[in-house]
Amino acid sequence: MTVSRFSNEVYAARLAAAAAATRDAGLAGLVITPGYDLRYLIGSRAQTLERLTALVVPAAGRPTVVVPRMERAALESSAVGDLGLTVEDWVDGDDPYVLVAEALGGIGGGPIDTAVTDSMPALHLIPLTAVFETMPVLATGVMRSLRMAKGPAEVDVLRKAGMAIDRVHARVHEFLRPGRTEADVAADIAEAIVAEGHSEATFVIVASGPYGADPHHECSDRVLEPGDVIVVDIGGPVEPGYYSDSTRTYCLGEPDPEFAEQYAVLQRAQATAVASVRPGVTAEEVDAAARRVLAEAGLGDYFVHRTGHGIGLSVHEEPYIVAGNSLPLAEGMAFSVEPGFYLPGKWGARIEDIVIVTEDGALSVNNRPRELAVVPLSP
Amino acid sequence: MTVSRFSNEVYAARLAAAAAATRDAGLAGLVITPGYDLRYLIGSRAQTLERLTALVVPAAGRPTVVVPRMERAALESSAVGDLGLTVEDWVDGDDPYVLVAEALGGIGGGPIDTAVTDSMPALHLIPLTAVFETMPVLATGVMRSLRMAKGPAEVDVLRKAGMAIDRVHARVHEFLRPGRTEADVAADIAEAIVAEGHSEATFVIVASGPYGADPHHECSDRVLEPGDVIVVDIGGPVEPGYYSDSTRTYCLGEPDPEFAEQYAVLQRAQATAVASVRPGVTAEEVDAAARRVLAEAGLGDYFVHRTGHGIGLSVHEEPYIVAGNSLPLAEGMAFSVEPGFYLPGKWGARIEDIVIVTEDGALSVNNRPRELAVVPLSP
Repeated sequence: MTVSRFSNEVYAARLAAAAAATRDAGLAGLVITPGYDLRYLIGSRAQTLERLTALVVPAAGRPTVVVPRMERAALESSAVGDLGLTVEDWVDGDDPYVLVAEALGGIGGGPIDTAVTDSMPALHLIPLTAVFETMPVLATGVMRSLRMAKGPAEVDVLRKAGMAIDRVHARVHEFLRPGRTEADVAADIAEAIVAEGHSEATFVIVASGPYGADPHHECSDRVLEPGDVIVVDIGGPVEPGYYSDSTRTYCLGEPDPEFAEQYAVLQRAQATAVASVRPGVTAEEVDAAARRVLAEAGLGDYFVHRTGHGIGLSVHEEPYIVAGNSLPLAEGMAFSVEPGFYLPGKWGARIEDIVIVTEDGALSVNNRPRELAVVPLSP
Repeated sequence: MTVSRFSNEVYAARLAAAAAATRDAGLAGLVITPGYDLRYLIGSRAQTLERLTALVVPAAGRPTVVVPRMERAALESSAVGDLGLTVEDWVDGDDPYVLVAEALGGIGGGPIDTAVTDSMPALHLIPLTAVFETMPVLATGVMRSLRMAKGPAEVDVLRKAGMAIDRVHARVHEFLRPGRTEADVAADIAEAIVAEGHSEATFVIVASGPYGADPHHECSDRVLEPGDVIVVDIGGPVEPGYYSDSTRTYCLGEPDPEFAEQYAVLQRAQATAVASVRPGVTAEEVDAAARRVLAEAGLGDYFVHRTGHGIGLSVHEEPYIVAGNSLPLAEGMAFSVEPGFYLPGKWGARIEDIVIVTEDGALSVNNRPRELAVVPLSP
């Protein structure tokens, strides 16, 4: 799988938008250590290590990258080479935190108000706080307005990822047979995820029978039995790194009638939530739409997680579709709609699509049938 | 590869030692989100996500784990089940940071002085700072005294890991042939790393010719040529998760005499640094020992990184063998001794062993010959 990037124009526009948002927030700058925000802003896949690498985006002026000298060459060849950034390198023994402050106009002029990337480790945040003489805020406020609303190039990749994971779900029935273990099935699915165009299989949940009642069960040596309900939640990145994530619920042979009835409610809940999506509706209203349908059928207490999460360069990002999030949805936002129900010791079910907010409502990038997928027991 | 843990007694002793060190530091408690410290203290391999999972170790009293309800089952089955910890779960919409403060005696009684794990993301550290009403310090001070000095069970695993990576280096000459690319060689090495007993190949640096001058070059499509110097720096974890890390420098056919002369200096520098290791010597003295030998031969400016890093559950951890680190070495400490020299555009070389401090000096877990490994050009 070849690693790819968007064009430099994409990153230059993102950097300019980040600087503008930083200015609007009344901050001196953004400090971004390796992680998704760094990848979003300059396309660098540098990893966080104990040595500080940081992109510093001042509210005005040229951004700077502070980087250990030994990692400078790799950084320049992979990302910053053509973006016109200032590069300040440092060697063991130097104080890289002072270099960050200098890229924001220097120390000694009083507290420096900054925002830092969510994933910045305490190892760097605590010394930065000392040189800034004030606690940074989270860059989420600045970055999420950029990262949440996907541009056309990003929407294309998310749709491609959605189609790729749909092709995997189309093959899952081949892998589900009584006598095989969850782990056997998961191995086949992982192979299919890569074969269908993902860079890797990031997560493969095969949760059968009572394990289905644990939303985060991954897979085990449990042997599949006739009548099992099986939750299959899978995904991975498609270059340049946008994730797929889709869940379908399968049944080995005919389902228990009680389960079938509950599943029909879930299908309505998921469809209702998707139908509620449009610009201006809040994230919590989408959550409530799904929750209401399940609650009215007495399943509310068994829907133990939020309805969804944003998706893009990371599997979980803003916007979160959860009670308390009054963020109004806007065109280009991409997130999962994935209600479920989980009856401890008995079974669980979930239906998950990634949708993109358009002027006309939700565009689903996943389009496999949402009915309970009954896998025939005999050929 | 089966995932393994140490016995519960090991973790119980570590928790007790962490609480005692916290008390000695005058802190109310430790807050440990997923990462190496969590794995060290309770054996949990939970991953950091946007939902807070945290082990809270008060200076006195029972530790608590704060965990999202949906991850409770996995956490209890994998780790905390038998350790007698209090578990406080939370669901989306709750404030998990308040649960952390409550596990430390509650809010409203003034600032709560805590130490947090190095890897805690800003996403959690900033809201925790708000409920604590004061900035935490890094738990490095508390944890490093525990984690640096390896116990007998850990030394056994590090030695096993050292022997495993030595067996890989013993096979590297088979993989090095003119006409093959660095990437071809790296793929063979990665396979050998797993075949020789590692859970995965975490890093495989094959840096040939001029790429050898970049200490962090990984591998490329560069084709090996006769006369190439090739730096091979490789490692991975051996269950229950302790890393190997060893570098040898190879030459395809006879080396350039200038290089051979420089390499002989490097070999002396590495041996001198290893010989300097004993309890009571400081980390920076070991760094200086290597650096002095290279500097006396005019190679000081080409040794662009520190001499070493601690190793254990993480590849890079305390103690760092670097100028400015006046930490006295003590029995059980494990770290790399890996001086190198890097001539831009020309070549590079490095020799790296992991050593453990014993009463009598350094015990090297790596024991492959340290001479330049000349790979014959024709069979």
